[in-house]
Amino acid sequence: MNKRIITLGEVLMRLTTPVSERFLQAQNYNIYFGGAEANVSVALANWGVSTAHVTSFPAHDIGRAATNYLKQHGVDTSFVYTNEGRMGLYFLENGVMQRSSKIIYDRFDSSFSKLDPATIDWDLVFKDADWFHWTGITPAASATAAQICLDALKAAEKKGITVSGDINYRRNLWQYGKQPLDIMPELVSRTHVIIAGLTDFENCMDIISDDFTDACQKAIQAFPSIETIANTHRESVSASHNRLTGMLYKNGKLLTSKTYDISHIVDRIGGGDSFMSGLIYGLMNKNDQDALEFAVAASVLKHSIIGDANLTSIEEVEQLTHGVNIGKLLR
Amino acid sequence: MNKRIITLGEVLMRLTTPVSERFLQAQNYNIYFGGAEANVSVALANWGVSTAHVTSFPAHDIGRAATNYLKQHGVDTSFVYTNEGRMGLYFLENGVMQRSSKIIYDRFDSSFSKLDPATIDWDLVFKDADWFHWTGITPAASATAAQICLDALKAAEKKGITVSGDINYRRNLWQYGKQPLDIMPELVSRTHVIIAGLTDFENCMDIISDDFTDACQKAIQAFPSIETIANTHRESVSASHNRLTGMLYKNGKLLTSKTYDISHIVDRIGGGDSFMSGLIYGLMNKNDQDALEFAVAASVLKHSIIGDANLTSIEEVEQLTHGVNIGKLLR
Amino acid sequence: MNKRIITLGEVLMRLTTPVSERFLQAQNYNIYFGGAEANVSVALANWGVSTAHVTSFPAHDIGRAATNYLKQHGVDTSFVYTNEGRMGLYFLENGVMQRSSKIIYDRFDSSFSKLDPATIDWDLVFKDADWFHWTGITPAASATAAQICLDALKAAEKKGITVSGDINYRRNLWQYGKQPLDIMPELVSRTHVIIAGLTDFENCMDIISDDFTDACQKAIQAFPSIETIANTHRESVSASHNRLTGMLYKNGKLLTSKTYDISHIVDRIGGGDSFMSGLIYGLMNKNDQDALEFAVAASVLKHSIIGDANLTSIEEVEQLTHGVNIGKLLR
Amino acid sequence: MNKRIITLGEVLMRLTTPVSERFLQAQNYNIYFGGAEANVSVALANWGVSTAHVTSFPAHDIGRAATNYLKQHGVDTSFVYTNEGRMGLYFLENGVMQRSSKIIYDRFDSSFSKLDPATIDWDLVFKDADWFHWTGITPAASATAAQICLDALKAAEKKGITVSGDINYRRNLWQYGKQPLDIMPELVSRTHVIIAGLTDFENCMDIISDDFTDACQKAIQAFPSIETIANTHRESVSASHNRLTGMLYKNGKLLTSKTYDISHIVDRIGGGDSFMSGLIYGLMNKNDQDALEFAVAASVLKHSIIGDANLTSIEEVEQLTHGVNIGKLLR
Amino acid sequence: MNKRIITLGEVLMRLTTPVSERFLQAQNYNIYFGGAEANVSVALANWGVSTAHVTSFPAHDIGRAATNYLKQHGVDTSFVYTNEGRMGLYFLENGVMQRSSKIIYDRFDSSFSKLDPATIDWDLVFKDADWFHWTGITPAASATAAQICLDALKAAEKKGITVSGDINYRRNLWQYGKQPLDIMPELVSRTHVIIAGLTDFENCMDIISDDFTDACQKAIQAFPSIETIANTHRESVSASHNRLTGMLYKNGKLLTSKTYDISHIVDRIGGGDSFMSGLIYGLMNKNDQDALEFAVAASVLKHSIIGDANLTSIEEVEQLTHGVNIGKLLR
Amino acid sequence: MNKRIITLGEVLMRLTTPVSERFLQAQNYNIYFGGAEANVSVALANWGVSTAHVTSFPAHDIGRAATNYLKQHGVDTSFVYTNEGRMGLYFLENGVMQRSSKIIYDRFDSSFSKLDPATIDWDLVFKDADWFHWTGITPAASATAAQICLDALKAAEKKGITVSGDINYRRNLWQYGKQPLDIMPELVSRTHVIIAGLTDFENCMDIISDDFTDACQKAIQAFPSIETIANTHRESVSASHNRLTGMLYKNGKLLTSKTYDISHIVDRIGGGDSFMSGLIYGLMNKNDQDALEFAVAASVLKHSIIGDANLTSIEEVEQLTHGVNIGKLLR
Repeated sequence: MNKRIITLGEVLMRLTTPVSERFLQAQNYNIYFGGAEANVSVALANWGVSTAHVTSFPAHDIGRAATNYLKQHGVDTSFVYTNEGRMGLYFLENGVMQRSSKIIYDRFDSSFSKLDPATIDWDLVFKDADWFHWTGITPAASATAAQICLDALKAAEKKGITVSGDINYRRNLWQYGKQPLDIMPELVSRTHVIIAGLTDFENCMDIISDDFTDACQKAIQAFPSIETIANTHRESVSASHNRLTGMLYKNGKLLTSKTYDISHIVDRIGGGDSFMSGLIYGLMNKNDQDALEFAVAASVLKHSIIGDANLTSIEEVEQLTHGVNIGKLLR
Repeated sequence: MNKRIITLGEVLMRLTTPVSERFLQAQNYNIYFGGAEANVSVALANWGVSTAHVTSFPAHDIGRAATNYLKQHGVDTSFVYTNEGRMGLYFLENGVMQRSSKIIYDRFDSSFSKLDPATIDWDLVFKDADWFHWTGITPAASATAAQICLDALKAAEKKGITVSGDINYRRNLWQYGKQPLDIMPELVSRTHVIIAGLTDFENCMDIISDDFTDACQKAIQAFPSIETIANTHRESVSASHNRLTGMLYKNGKLLTSKTYDISHIVDRIGGGDSFMSGLIYGLMNKNDQDALEFAVAASVLKHSIIGDANLTSIEEVEQLTHGVNIGKLLR
Repeated sequence: MNKRIITLGEVLMRLTTPVSERFLQAQNYNIYFGGAEANVSVALANWGVSTAHVTSFPAHDIGRAATNYLKQHGVDTSFVYTNEGRMGLYFLENGVMQRSSKIIYDRFDSSFSKLDPATIDWDLVFKDADWFHWTGITPAASATAAQICLDALKAAEKKGITVSGDINYRRNLWQYGKQPLDIMPELVSRTHVIIAGLTDFENCMDIISDDFTDACQKAIQAFPSIETIANTHRESVSASHNRLTGMLYKNGKLLTSKTYDISHIVDRIGGGDSFMSGLIYGLMNKNDQDALEFAVAASVLKHSIIGDANLTSIEEVEQLTHGVNIGKLLR
Repeated sequence: MNKRIITLGEVLMRLTTPVSERFLQAQNYNIYFGGAEANVSVALANWGVSTAHVTSFPAHDIGRAATNYLKQHGVDTSFVYTNEGRMGLYFLENGVMQRSSKIIYDRFDSSFSKLDPATIDWDLVFKDADWFHWTGITPAASATAAQICLDALKAAEKKGITVSGDINYRRNLWQYGKQPLDIMPELVSRTHVIIAGLTDFENCMDIISDDFTDACQKAIQAFPSIETIANTHRESVSASHNRLTGMLYKNGKLLTSKTYDISHIVDRIGGGDSFMSGLIYGLMNKNDQDALEFAVAASVLKHSIIGDANLTSIEEVEQLTHGVNIGKLLR
Repeated sequence: MNKRIITLGEVLMRLTTPVSERFLQAQNYNIYFGGAEANVSVALANWGVSTAHVTSFPAHDIGRAATNYLKQHGVDTSFVYTNEGRMGLYFLENGVMQRSSKIIYDRFDSSFSKLDPATIDWDLVFKDADWFHWTGITPAASATAAQICLDALKAAEKKGITVSGDINYRRNLWQYGKQPLDIMPELVSRTHVIIAGLTDFENCMDIISDDFTDACQKAIQAFPSIETIANTHRESVSASHNRLTGMLYKNGKLLTSKTYDISHIVDRIGGGDSFMSGLIYGLMNKNDQDALEFAVAASVLKHSIIGDANLTSIEEVEQLTHGVNIGKLLR
Repeated sequence: MNKRIITLGEVLMRLTTPVSERFLQAQNYNIYFGGAEANVSVALANWGVSTAHVTSFPAHDIGRAATNYLKQHGVDTSFVYTNEGRMGLYFLENGVMQRSSKIIYDRFDSSFSKLDPATIDWDLVFKDADWFHWTGITPAASATAAQICLDALKAAEKKGITVSGDINYRRNLWQYGKQPLDIMPELVSRTHVIIAGLTDFENCMDIISDDFTDACQKAIQAFPSIETIANTHRESVSASHNRLTGMLYKNGKLLTSKTYDISHIVDRIGGGDSFMSGLIYGLMNKNDQDALEFAVAASVLKHSIIGDANLTSIEEVEQLTHGVNIGKLLR
C-alpha cells in the first residue's frame, strides 16, 4: 500500500515546565511542537505512510525550527507557508497525582490564523492524496482558517478523497464572531470519519443526546456523509493514572476496545491525536475491530512518550493489542 | 477578611539529590529553602493571607537568597534579622519505591539558634496580627530560641492573639541541655490549636496514651488553653505511595477527613506544614469539618509539588475536597 | 568474617536516554558502567566485602574512566588489564508504562573479548580468595573469553574455592562459531551455586523441563558439583510495575521468598545481578531462607536506584526483609 | 538617606536558548523576566534603595510568576495590576564570537499595553517618592501606555519629583498610529535626567547632530527641564568582547569615564539599564564624575551576570571603579 | 539558481562530554550527528540549495535518528540505505585554554563501510545533479567504500557533473590493506575542485613540497582535471582562540582571504566542512575572491555553533565578509 | 621509580553555583570534593604515583561519597577515618570577567578538626613512604589537627622521609586560640620543600621582606631543614584571564619559569595544589628547572578542568612545557 494523507492545521510551540514543576517555580521550559492535525501526520509518517501537512509559520528562525520539526519526522513540508503573524504558543504545566495539568494558550494572531485562503492551490495539494484530515480547531481559529477548511473539503469532495474530522470542540476559541453551529455543520457534512463525544455533538452538530450510540445514529441521519464515528472514554484516577477505552460506531453497530489501565503517565498531550492516527491507519489496513484496537493501543503508548509526536512503531502498537512484550526489557 | 499571621522559626537550606539519586551518586544538589513554620507563612501568603516570618540568617549572599525566597512568595521579611552563625542546612535523598528518604541534618550553630531574644520587639511584630504559629523545633534548637518562643507566646497572650503550635517532637534536636518536658509544657499552656500525635503527647506534654481521642481529652484537661487538636495519619505503602487521613478533635468530638490514596508522590517534605497551613486557613474561614478537609487536601496536593512551598490555589484545594477536576487537563 | 570474592567478565559502558525519552528523541545519553559480574563485585564491595574484578579495557581515557568506576566503589582493580579492542557499549531506552525498554548492543570486538588467556595468572588472582563468580555471558563473547572462564574454573577447583555461575543465556551472543552446549556444560560441571531458569536449563545445560523443581533435580543429577540453584520470577504488569519472587532449590527442597510488588520502577538493569550479590552474601552469612529473602530484597531495592550499581546498605536490605522502614522519611 | 524611586513600564518574559545555541537547535529555553524600567527598580532595590514598579500582568500563573520575580528582588509590587491581554514575550538567541545575538519580539497586545490610564492613582503611587523613571519604550507600546506615561509625568511635576528618562528609540515599536515626534517631546520636556544617543536625539527629540556634546547643548536649549544627559559608547570587537565608556553632560561640561575592556561576556541584556540604575544611585549619592564611574562600572559587572537583574553589591561596583579586587578569589 | 548537490560518506554519531569536562569526569554525553560530507549537504540545504546525501545506517532506532537528523535540516534522504554493521561513533572531549581536544574514534565495521557498491544506482542518484562532493575519508574506510567512491566519480564524469573532493588525509584510517597512494590518485584525477594541504598532497597525491603554491602547480600538472585548490591556514593560540585564513589557487594565481581572529570558540568540529560548503556555494554564485571570503566567513561562524551543522544564513555569512553586524544585538 | 607519597588534611565538599550564576540566582549547586593536600594525592595518583591520604569524615553517606571520590582517583584510603563532627563545606560562586569569585566557608566543627591524634599510627602510615606533604591549613583548623600535623612531622623525621609543606596562610582560620607563629615555626623547621609567598613568610615564619629572594635566604637561615622554596606569581587581568609564572629558590639561586597567558579560565580552584603536585613529581624525576616548568604547566592545565582534581596526563603537562600540541584537535 502506498497511501498519501494530507493534514491541515495550526502548529503551536508548546512550552512545558520541566518534570512536574508549577508555573510559579519554572526557571526554564522544554520546547515541543505540535498541533492536533500535524500530530496525525507525524504519527503516520513515522509508521511509513506518505503525509503532507498544510500550515503557515512566521518567516523567522522559530518558524523555521517548527518546519524542521515536521521534516525531521518525515512529513512533506511543501505546503508549509510563511506569513505575517505570530508563532502560536501554549504553556503547559504538567499535572501529577491529584493535581491537574494546566494550559495557558497564547495563540491569537498567529501566522496560520492570518493565512490567505487564496494562497493554497488545493488541487496541487491533493495530487496523489487518498485521505484528508481536519479538526474543529481550524474553523475555530479565524474566519480565513474556516474558509481554508471549507475550500479543502470542497476540493477533497471533487477528487473523491476520504475525509476525517476530529470535532474537538474548544469553548475558548471561536472568538472571531462566529459560533460553531454557524460553521461546523457544513464542514461535517463533507466528512466520512469523525471523532466526537457528547459535547462535540451538541456544540458543533446540534445533536443533543446523553448516549453515545444514540448520538451516533442521529449524527448519521443528519449528516449522511458520515460512515464512521469513533471516540475514547478516559477515566481519570489521577493525572498520573487513567483508564482508556475506545469506541467505534459503524454500520449501526458500536464496537468497544479493550480497556487499558495506564499508570505512570509521562505525557497525555496528543493522546487523542494518536487515537485518530491509529484509526486512519487501521481503517486503511485492518478490519473495524482491529482498527479500533490499533487506535487505542497507539493512544496508550503515546502516554509513555514525552512531546506530541507518537514515536512508536507499528510492531509495538500491534504487540500491545495482542498483549505481547508489555513492559519487558527487549535486548 | 484581612487577617495577619506571624510565624517564627529557623529556615534551612535543603540540598536534595536530583530525581531519585542516592547520596553516593549525586554530582549536584537542588536547592530549596524551607522550615516548618516558614512553610506555613509561604502557603498562607500564596493564598492571599498577610503573613510575616520571624527568623535570622547569616549576613552573606546565601542568607540574602533565603530572605529573597520568602519575599518572592509574598512573606513580609521585616522581621528577618542577620546575625552571626551558620546557614542551617540539611541534605535530602528522596526515596522511591520501597526505599526510604534519608535526611542528614547540618543545622547546629545556625544564625537562628544564636539569635539574641532581646533583638525582637514582639509588640512591634504583633502589630495588627491575628494569629501566631510556632513549632516544637524552635525550643529544641537552643536555649535562646526557646526563650524567644516563650517571649512571643507571652506577648501574644497579652494581645489576645490566637496561637497554634505544631508539637513536632524531634529526638535528634534538644542538644543544649534541656529536655522537652523542661520547656514544652509552658509553651503548650499558652497555645490554642495544636498538632500532635501520640509520640508528641508523650515526649512534650507528658501525656501517655495509645489512643488519639483519649490523649486529646487528657491534653485539654492538662492544658486548658487548648481548644483544637489535629493530626494526620499517614500509611506508607512505599515512598511513592501513601494514604493520608486527617483528624480534628474539638469540643469533645473527633472529626475525620476523607482518606486520600496518593501515588506517584513527588515530594513529601512539608506535607505536614501544608496540613497546618490549611488548618489555620480553614479555622479562620470554614466550619470545623470543612477546615479539616481543606487541610488534608492542601497536604495531599503538596505531595505533587517539588520543594517545601505549597504553591496551590484555594480553588485547587477546594476542588479536591469536592472531588472536582482531579488529575484533568485544564485548558 | 573477611571473605574475598573474585568476579570475571566484560564491563560495558551503558548509554541511556534521559528519563523516558526514546532513541528518536534523545539529545544526550547518561553514562553508566556495568556488567553482570562486575555488578556483583560492586554490590558486595559496597556491603564491605573484599572483591576484585578481572576484566580488560582499551588503553584510553574511557577505559580509564571505567576502571575508576570500579575503584570508586571499592573493587580491587589489580587484575584489570588493558588490551587492544573497543570499549564494549550498549544503548538503553528505558521503558515506562506498557512501553518496553530497548537495548541496542554494540559490544563485538571489545578489549575483553580479545584478552589473551595467557595474560592472567589465576593462582595470583585467587590468592586469599573464597569465592569465584562467573556468568554465561563470558563464554558467549569469544573463544578466548570462554577459555579464560574455563582456566579460572580449573584454578578455582584446585584451590577449593566456592564457585557461582549465573547461566544467563543470551541468544544474540554466541557468534564465534560455538553453541552454548559445546561450552557451557563443562563450565557448569565445576560450579556449586547457579542461577538458572527454564530457558537457561534448556539451552546451556540440555535439561528440558517445564517445571523449575523438576529441572533443578535433573540439573543436580547431571551436574553433581551443583549444590544450590536459585532464580527469580518476575511478572511485568508494565515497565513501571513488576512483581518479584525468589526461589532457592537446595538439598531437595524448594524455598520461595516473599513476593514484592514493585511499582514506580526507576531502573531494572542489574536487578538480577543484585539478586546474585545478595545470594552470595546471604549464603556466606545466613541460613538458606534468610539468604533467599536477603537476595530478593536486594534486588527489589536495586530497582529504585539508577545505574547498575546496587548502592544499598546491609541494614536497608535487612530492614526490607523484616518489613521495617519501608518508604519512610528517615531523619 | 532613605530615597524612594518609582519606575513604570512593561515587564517581558525572556525566553533564551541555552548557552549559545541557535533558535534552530534549542530544545528548551531559560526564563528570565525583565524590562528596561523594572531592571532599574531591581538593581536599586538590590542596593538597598526603596523602589516600586508600576506595570500590569495577565491574571494567570505566569503573570503571578512575573510579579513574584519583582517581589523576590525587593521591589514593591503594590502597583502591579492585573488586566486582560497577553504576557509580553521575547525570544533571545545569545551571540558569541563574531555571531550576533538575535531577538524575536512577541509583545503586542500585552496586558500592559492595554492598561487603562484611569486604573492608576498617581498621587498614591508617588506618596513619599523622590524620583520617577520612565523610558521611550512605554509611549511606543500603545496610546494608553503613552497616556499613562504622560499622566505620571504631570503628577511627578506637581509633586516636584525628579524625573529620569531613557529615550531608548525602538524603530519596531510605535505601531499604534503615532510617531515618536508626536509624543516624545512633551514627555522629555518634563524630564530632568535623560539617557540619549544621536539616534535618540534625532528620532525622539528632533535634534540632528553628529556630535554628542553639540546634541546635548541643543537638547538643553530645546528642553529646559533637562539638567543631565548621559550615554554609553559600546565598541563591539565581537559578541564576546566589547569595550564600554560612559559620558555625562551637565552644566555645559562633558565628563567621560574610564574605558573598560569586557571580554568573556555572559549576558549583555540589561547593560544599559544597569548604567541607568548606577546613574540614579550615583547622582543621589556622589559627585558627577563618581556617579558616572559608578554607572559604567555597574554596567560592566552586569555583563558577567546572566539575566536582566544587576545582582551586584554597592561595594563590588565601587571596588571596580577603584581597580580593587578585580577578578580575584575572595575567601 | 536551482542547483543540486550530491554528497557521499559516512555519518557518525558524535558523543561529546558536556561543556569542557574530561572523559574521566563525564557523567553524560551530548549527541550530535555529522560527517565531513554530510556536513556539506546540511550547510548547503540550510542555505536553500537542493542536496541529497548518500550513506548507510544500521536498521535500528539510532540509525533512524541519524536519518531524521538529515531530514530535519532539509537534506534529501532518498539514498540513505540500511545495512548490517554498526553505527559509526566517535567520542569527543572538547579542549579549552591550552588543553587540546581529544577524539576517540570507534567507527570500524560500520554499516557504511560494509555497504555493497551494487546497492547504489548512481544514474538515479545523479538525476538533475550539478555537483558531487566526496572526501578522502570514504576511500580510507573500506575496500567497498573506495569502490563506491570510484563508481560515483565515473558516473559523475559521464554526466559532466562538477566534482569536489576534500583530500582530508587521516593516518589512523586506511586499515583494510590499501595505502592512500594505491587509491587516491585515481579518484583525484576525476575531481575539479580540491581542498588539500601539504600533508594531503604528500600522502594522497605523491606531491612533495613545502610551499602551497608550488604544490598546487605540481598538482594541476599531475592531475589535469583539477581547476581549483583551496585550503585554510589555522593558527592555534589555544583551544579557545585561533586565527583562520583561507587560500584559493586557480588559474595560476593564489588568492588569500582576510584573517579572522576567533576567540571564545564554541565548537571547531566541522569548521573545515563549512569552508568546503562555503566554497561550493561561492564558486556557484560569486567570483573567486568573494567565493573564498564567503567560505572562510562560513567557517568562522561555524566555530560559534555547537554541533557539526553550520546553521548560519547566507545573509549572516555575507555580512561578516563585509564587516557588518559583527557581534551586535539584532532586535 | 615506585615512590609513595602520604598527604594529610581536611577534605571539603565544594558546592558551586552552575556556570557563572551568583549565589542570589542559583537553584542548584554542583558538588566537588577537594582539599589542598588531597588534591596533591589525586594529581599524583592520576600520574601513576602511589599515594595515600590521611583524613576523617563523618560516618554517613556523604562522608562515604567523599571517600569514594578519593578511591575513584586511585588514592589509598586505608587511613581515612570516620569520626563525629560535620562534613566540612564551602560554597563557591565562580567569577567571570571583572567579577571576582566568592567563597563562603562552612568548615568549623568538621570531623577532621575533631580527630583524636591518638587514632593515627604514623609508623604504619609511613610504611614504604618516601614523601610526606602537609599545608598550613591543617594546623589552622584545630588544636588536635595541629597536634596531628606535628606528630606526623616527627614520625617522618625519624624515618627520614622528605617533607613538603604549603604554608598557605589563611587569616579566617586560626580560631581555636593559637596564632600561626605559635605553631607554624616548629612545623616548618621539620620541612624540606616549602611553598610560600611574602604574606606566608611574614605571618607563619616571622620573616618580613618585600623581596622573594631575600625572604628565601632568610627562611633558609632561620629554618635549616628547608632546601627548596617555590611559589607562583599570578596576575589577574580578570577572573577569566590570568598570567602565571613559577619561581623556585634552591642552593642560593632563583629559577623562574615561562609565563603563561591563561584566558578562558574554567576553574582556578586547586591551581596552587597542582603546582605543588607538579613540583613534587618534578623534584622526584627531573632537574630543578624542568621540575619548575612541569609544576607551572600542571597548574596552567588545571585551570582548564572543572573541579579540584588535576586530571591531566604526564604527557600533556610535558607537551605544554615544550610548546607542543597546544589547543589542538588530537584524533
